[in-house]
Amino acid sequence: MDAEHKRVTLEEGPVCPIPLPHQERIVLGHGSGGKMTHDLVERLFLPHFDNPILRTGDDAAPLELGEELELALSTDSHVVTPLFFPGGDIGRLAVCGTVNDVAMLGAKPLYLTAGFILEEGLEMRTLERVIHSMMEAAQEAGVAIVAGDTKVVERGKADRLFINTTGLGVRRKGLKIGGAQARPGDAVLLSGPLGDHGMAVVRARGELGFEIEVESDTAPLNGLVEALLESGAEVHVLRDPTRGGLATTLNEIAAQSQVGILLDEAAIPVRPAVQAACEALGFDPLYLANEGRLAAIVAEEGAERALRALRGQRYGEASVRIGRVVENHAGRVMLKTRLGSTRVIERLAGEMLPRIC
Amino acid sequence: MDAEHKRVTLEEGPVCPIPLPHQERIVLGHGSGGKMTHDLVERLFLPHFDNPILRTGDDAAPLELGEELELALSTDSHVVTPLFFPGGDIGRLAVCGTVNDVAMLGAKPLYLTAGFILEEGLEMRTLERVIHSMMEAAQEAGVAIVAGDTKVVERGKADRLFINTTGLGVRRKGLKIGGAQARPGDAVLLSGPLGDHGMAVVRARGELGFEIEVESDTAPLNGLVEALLESGAEVHVLRDPTRGGLATTLNEIAAQSQVGILLDEAAIPVRPAVQAACEALGFDPLYLANEGRLAAIVAEEGAERALRALRGQRYGEASVRIGRVVENHAGRVMLKTRLGSTRVIERLAGEMLPRIC
Repeated sequence: MDAEHKRVTLEEGPVCPIPLPHQERIVLGHGSGGKMTHDLVERLFLPHFDNPILRTGDDAAPLELGEELELALSTDSHVVTPLFFPGGDIGRLAVCGTVNDVAMLGAKPLYLTAGFILEEGLEMRTLERVIHSMMEAAQEAGVAIVAGDTKVVERGKADRLFINTTGLGVRRKGLKIGGAQARPGDAVLLSGPLGDHGMAVVRARGELGFEIEVESDTAPLNGLVEALLESGAEVHVLRDPTRGGLATTLNEIAAQSQVGILLDEAAIPVRPAVQAACEALGFDPLYLANEGRLAAIVAEEGAERALRALRGQRYGEASVRIGRVVENHAGRVMLKTRLGSTRVIERLAGEMLPRIC
Repeated sequence: MDAEHKRVTLEEGPVCPIPLPHQERIVLGHGSGGKMTHDLVERLFLPHFDNPILRTGDDAAPLELGEELELALSTDSHVVTPLFFPGGDIGRLAVCGTVNDVAMLGAKPLYLTAGFILEEGLEMRTLERVIHSMMEAAQEAGVAIVAGDTKVVERGKADRLFINTTGLGVRRKGLKIGGAQARPGDAVLLSGPLGDHGMAVVRARGELGFEIEVESDTAPLNGLVEALLESGAEVHVLRDPTRGGLATTLNEIAAQSQVGILLDEAAIPVRPAVQAACEALGFDPLYLANEGRLAAIVAEEGAERALRALRGQRYGEASVRIGRVVENHAGRVMLKTRLGSTRVIERLAGEMLPRIC
């Protein structure tokens, strides 16, 4: 066996010039969407795959192709457990999650690919229900699933069913929408109550110890985004606060745009049932995952017009203004509490609810 | 709990109007790339996700966008075990596999997305080596990794590391390359010996019981495809014979084009070491996976020019002509054996080597 073989087969070799993340092994927190995921991306993925498009750090990659088109490309793997939960399932989630990431660049999602990793022994009926649900969600979102792949691993080497979806959309050339576009004075809008998805999955896991009425908000948000763009409001940032919740999403934006974001706690909608469950479990709804909520940062001039546009849409009826972008506290998210004090909201550290999406 | 909840949480519900595949559970053969995968796609995925693009059934989806551009989009999840093998690793495989699928539509691969599913406890050093290898392969292929996603599942819920890659490329408008384009009289070309990848993975698994010198052929084939297109030869079909091997790939083409394909056994290159190992293990190299081989079907007029163009490329030096497309035996692949008889070559049934890619 020559030296080359040794290198690749023994999983050893020269130390990489790029410093490793400080943990020696992957832990669940690396998949949280919060601080540890951020560190992994910053220290491992970005230095290796470095390019200006990846560095934009948004939910989708903006691609310029030819004279007339700008594309948005985004990928997400879905490992949610259980596969079925009130208000959705892994199939609906896999379609909506990626449709939304593409839409968050102000693009119109057109095409999806679907990659399945199946565990040997998965019931065909379960797979069929998931596929059926993907079909329905794709129809609702108006996207076509144009390419796919299926892999099967031995029993015990996966957890029933994982789905990767990658989405491709087009956007108007020259549209400047992205996490780095927030400006002091902008209004922060939110399309509905926080935490429904996270709490619905906890409920489906039977981990609540009590019964609550909550369904996942999993939904395609491209209709909301279209309405917002057509409203004439100047849209700066669009994000769907999934893993890590609104707190983590807004922290990312604050860092990308180097601005402060000041939230008004009293204005942030949370269903009473979700709030009560959060209090019982010690969760903060600001960190719970949402799969059908839009956070939009728009220029103050058009903020009311934007709100009206959102409220006219099926998934935006409960849209509200929750805060504003400020010049001070650059890179931080601040919460004005109901009691009138102001506290810093950090991004999610560690992992609150593994495998939420 | 209302009816809607029951429907989604109990994994039950109205029977889908589309008949289910006849197996009740997923077995390894559904991921073989052979007959069972074909059946699953035909009976479950295609009826649900039905659209003309998906129905083309090629390695990548051809997308028309705007006036000037045609795109190719393709996705593959990678679950190969072990992660490292002679001649490559899951990272190189994940980049090359998708680059090649995009190139097989005659497109120039430009962008990749990467979705990682990590098992809790994976050594950071292993992940880092894989990422490093992806970076090198992407540089070699000339593609940028522009979007990514990382999920972590609990220990025992995945097998260390799965990678999905999705690739996007551009192709000249109006280029007619696809599995349905083979015509009687065309020449069938192959860019190098068969089975190196499959046998290298078997070797890395320590399942051989003897030692052989073989390395995976994992390589980006977009350079080969470019050379072929520039040669002036009329290119009808391009395919990389991965899972299911050359036999399965050519069967797919024969079915898509409704032609026969007649192979000359004596012309099909197989390394002596691979041939010997196949004989010892009862494998047929026609069904072994390749990850850096190109099968091209070109009009006879330009076949010699095409061969010269392939041979001028790093990964095409050993290119040869292995057969031709014929009018009779439509939908079938026939092999003229060294002894002068002719036999039918079916697509792979069941699963020969699970998790080869």
